[in-house]
Amino acid sequence: MSWPINEIRADFPILDQRINEERLAYLDNAATMQSPLPVTRAVDAYYATTHSNVHRGVYTLSNQATAAYEGARQKVATFLNAASANDIVFTRSTTESLNLVACGFGDLVVHAGDEIVISVAEHHSNLIPWQQLAARAGATLKYIELKTDGTFDMTSAAAQITSKTKIVAVAQVGNVMGAINPVTALAQMAHQVGAYLVVDGAQAVSHLPVDVQQLDADFYAFSGHKMGAPTGIGVLYGKPALLEQMDPVQYGGEMISQVTRTTATWKAAPLKFEAGTPNISGAIGLGAAIDYLQQYGLANIQTYEHELMASLLPQLLALPGVTVYGPTDPALRGGVVAFNIDGLHPHDAATGLDLLGVEVRAGHHCAQPLMQDLGVSATARASVALYNNQTDIDQLIDGIKQVKEFFLHESRSNE
Amino acid sequence: MSWPINEIRADFPILDQRINEERLAYLDNAATMQSPLPVTRAVDAYYATTHSNVHRGVYTLSNQATAAYEGARQKVATFLNAASANDIVFTRSTTESLNLVACGFGDLVVHAGDEIVISVAEHHSNLIPWQQLAARAGATLKYIELKTDGTFDMTSAAAQITSKTKIVAVAQVGNVMGAINPVTALAQMAHQVGAYLVVDGAQAVSHLPVDVQQLDADFYAFSGHKMGAPTGIGVLYGKPALLEQMDPVQYGGEMISQVTRTTATWKAAPLKFEAGTPNISGAIGLGAAIDYLQQYGLANIQTYEHELMASLLPQLLALPGVTVYGPTDPALRGGVVAFNIDGLHPHDAATGLDLLGVEVRAGHHCAQPLMQDLGVSATARASVALYNNQTDIDQLIDGIKQVKEFFLHESRSNE
Repeated sequence: MSWPINEIRADFPILDQRINEERLAYLDNAATMQSPLPVTRAVDAYYATTHSNVHRGVYTLSNQATAAYEGARQKVATFLNAASANDIVFTRSTTESLNLVACGFGDLVVHAGDEIVISVAEHHSNLIPWQQLAARAGATLKYIELKTDGTFDMTSAAAQITSKTKIVAVAQVGNVMGAINPVTALAQMAHQVGAYLVVDGAQAVSHLPVDVQQLDADFYAFSGHKMGAPTGIGVLYGKPALLEQMDPVQYGGEMISQVTRTTATWKAAPLKFEAGTPNISGAIGLGAAIDYLQQYGLANIQTYEHELMASLLPQLLALPGVTVYGPTDPALRGGVVAFNIDGLHPHDAATGLDLLGVEVRAGHHCAQPLMQDLGVSATARASVALYNNQTDIDQLIDGIKQVKEFFLHESRSNE
Repeated sequence: MSWPINEIRADFPILDQRINEERLAYLDNAATMQSPLPVTRAVDAYYATTHSNVHRGVYTLSNQATAAYEGARQKVATFLNAASANDIVFTRSTTESLNLVACGFGDLVVHAGDEIVISVAEHHSNLIPWQQLAARAGATLKYIELKTDGTFDMTSAAAQITSKTKIVAVAQVGNVMGAINPVTALAQMAHQVGAYLVVDGAQAVSHLPVDVQQLDADFYAFSGHKMGAPTGIGVLYGKPALLEQMDPVQYGGEMISQVTRTTATWKAAPLKFEAGTPNISGAIGLGAAIDYLQQYGLANIQTYEHELMASLLPQLLALPGVTVYGPTDPALRGGVVAFNIDGLHPHDAATGLDLLGVEVRAGHHCAQPLMQDLGVSATARASVALYNNQTDIDQLIDGIKQVKEFFLHESRSNE
């Protein structure tokens, strides 16, 4: 597709720098996405003109700051197609959002003998909160197994989701193998047995259109920094009746209604979950990041990133001695791909690629149970965003060849 | 004292704007302090050159981001005179820091029949977490009463802190009446009975030198945005042995050591308390804010702000029909003063002052039990920072006179 790549890349000056004297190919977008200039400018403008505490003052600056903060909440609601801005809770991150659901809601609905179902591919942030909830409640944590291509085994899902299930929690897009998971189908399966579906949207929100009502997700969590917003801002969407039912887990200013020496009552959602001064400029930056992505359109971004992966994936699969994890069909994938080079620790691979200006992650990607299933301790992982281009893909593929040559003393002509 | 006020004000361009066509006198620093240009520049430089996820990559950008983030932690440690950067946990805010202590540590040490002691003057963020902990544990929350000048009644403190006490939690500087509280004496009283002292430093950190080892605080909490840092970053200092003992309350990436399908173990402090991607740019901004304040010196800032209060307080006390809460001796105070105008709701007072460009807060200041003690529903509150000047003070005093005239139809000549 025609893609205004030069216009986009001009908004990300960090991409112009050289790393180890080489052109930077930033391919760790699944860990954090770079922040475009309009986000930086929105945050700077806030501090230069409006900065003040929200919900707390009757004066001009405070009213302006409150309007900007609540305006960002409305942008998030529109972005997710939530019914109301009141369904949007600002948190620090996906991790905090998922912990909030596990404590504030999970403790209410999960009891001894109940079951919680997640997949083997979940990030630790969508695993350990449920493991801990299960331990607190005397419940059991069960796993949806994966097919060999890294997609969910829906026969396993059907077997695990039963009348004992209270919560099903899955990522919309896997953070290691990149599979796009069948969230709508899982919502139906969960709701049929009276369970709730919690969706980790961290790897989805900047890469494809998200409609929480269409997905029928009961809760949806994501992080701003994975979509160009500043660090330190995240979102929990919840269906309004569930947010009303849910308990706060932090207490302090701005979330209370009445406080005496011995008692306290809460405001309605979302404020009851936002104790203390929130990350005001982070929320405003998130609003600007949403504006930025919507300017190009999430469906278009998905199409463009799919083209990048349709170029990358076959080249990666064709490299001898390279193992690719996850679906081989780009249509089943988001913009994340994990791989390993035979005979080379992924940390060495990433270090070697870094010397060539290619920034990929190496490690367990906060998914140790998945690594155990794959029989590896770690993998390398490349992941794209709307500003990556074919040169980045070429640089990665060529980089892998050079790294193999260097570490494994292979001749490139032998490949 | 000689104070480079013009040089300082030049770093805060927000102060140059006009509010309702009047000169801005920003006097709500107790709610949030404005952010100086060096902080904005440090954050912008991070996004333009270094942005990447921390602790997660082996590549150049990630190593640089990690060094910047951990460098900020070291700056906080030095700022507080903590023994080690490992004693510093990054949180969102004072509120989150205090909630973390109440859940992660309080649940370990407070049991049925035990007592927690706070003061009547505490902010809700240093009150409700303890109220909730007491309810969970079957413990009792007890209050140190205040003397009529708003300072702690140390006879009351001595009566309340007993062998049943497990935790004493107080603000170093009150957020309504501005009293500087005898934290060191309370630390001794707490430690004599085997209790722990938790200090809410939100109103202290940008106004006076803080030395956690000299205070002998077991935990010390504060927010970056009250000292010129961006919103969304806070700190919990803890004595190392206590942090080691304390449980995490959020679970996810970067805080774990080993995870299997059924078990998980944690890293050492501080990382075990920082699940998920942290507010990296917020921490870097906090480091820059600390550099900024230290450039002028906290002892000098305290002296300068004391001079402002020594000008403001007598003028405020001399206004007929104005009630001032808290110590009348500026030496007993930080830079916060609450007041009411007879016959006028504080919201009307603040709205009237806003029309004159004077930004003060009106409300219960997240201290409803204190309001109940004072027999009012709300107060107005003015609070200074290092960039306020005598013109701000004059504008406030003159503004109060005009507001009285306007709302109460008083003739200024009659005063």
